[in-house]
Amino acid sequence: MPTRTAAQRRAEASTAYDAYLARCPARQLLDRIADKWVSLVVNALADGPRRYSHLQRTLASVSQKMLTQTLRHLERDGLVSRTVIPAVPVRVEYELTPLGRSLLPVMCAIKGWAEEHMDEVLAARASHDAAG
Amino acid sequence: MPTRTAAQRRAEASTAYDAYLARCPARQLLDRIADKWVSLVVNALADGPRRYSHLQRTLASVSQKMLTQTLRHLERDGLVSRTVIPAVPVRVEYELTPLGRSLLPVMCAIKGWAEEHMDEVLAARASHDAAG
Repeated sequence: MPTRTAAQRRAEASTAYDAYLARCPARQLLDRIADKWVSLVVNALADGPRRYSHLQRTLASVSQKMLTQTLRHLERDGLVSRTVIPAVPVRVEYELTPLGRSLLPVMCAIKGWAEEHMDEVLAARASHDAAG
Repeated sequence: MPTRTAAQRRAEASTAYDAYLARCPARQLLDRIADKWVSLVVNALADGPRRYSHLQRTLASVSQKMLTQTLRHLERDGLVSRTVIPAVPVRVEYELTPLGRSLLPVMCAIKGWAEEHMDEVLAARASHDAAG
C-alpha cells in the first residue's frame, strides 16, 4: 500500500466516513463529541493547561464521576493530554492536543449558540406549551 | 413565587446566559442541542422540508421512538416546524424554522469534524489502548 500524505488521508476520510450510517465509526464519534460536558470541558481548556480542580470550579456542580469520565474519554480519543507534574503535592494538568484544539471552534460555537438563542428557545417553549 | 409575564421573563433572559453555570437554562439547552440525533436531524433538514419516512431512511437504523422524541423536542424548542398536508394519505413534513436554520452551520460543523477526524481519533485510541 503506497504511503499517503496527511492531506490525502484527510481527503479520503471525509468521503469514507458518514455519520448518517449506524455502523460508521463517525456516528459513535459524533455521539461522543456531541455532549454537553465535552463542550464545556473543551471550552474550559481554550486558554491553556488547567488543573482538575480548576475545571471542577469552572463547570459548576459537575460531579467528580462525570468530569473524570469525560476527561478519560477525551484523553483516549487524543483530544486532551494529561500531564503529571512532580511537585508537592503532585499536580495534574489537562491540555488540549492539536487535535482537540481543532475541535475548539465547533465546541465554542455550540456553547455560544445556546447562550445567544436562549431567549428565543424559551419563548418558543412558552408558546408551544400554551398552545398545548 | 410571583407569576411573571412572558415579557418579564424575556427581560430577565436578556442578561447574559452562561452555560458553565448549573442552574443557567443555557446549560440545559446545550444539553439538548449537543446531541447526536439533533445534529443528524438538523443536517438532514438542510435542503428543505422532509417527510418523517425520509428522515428515518437518512438516519439509518434510528428507532422510531428516538426520532419522534427528537423531532418533538426540536418542535417545542422552536427549531423545527411540523406541517400536516391534507392528502390521501395525510403527509407530515418537518422543516427547519429560521431559528433552527441558525443552528445548521454548527450542527454541520460538528458532523463534519467527526467524519473528517475519525482516522486520527481511531489512531489515538489504538495507541492509548496499546499503552494501557
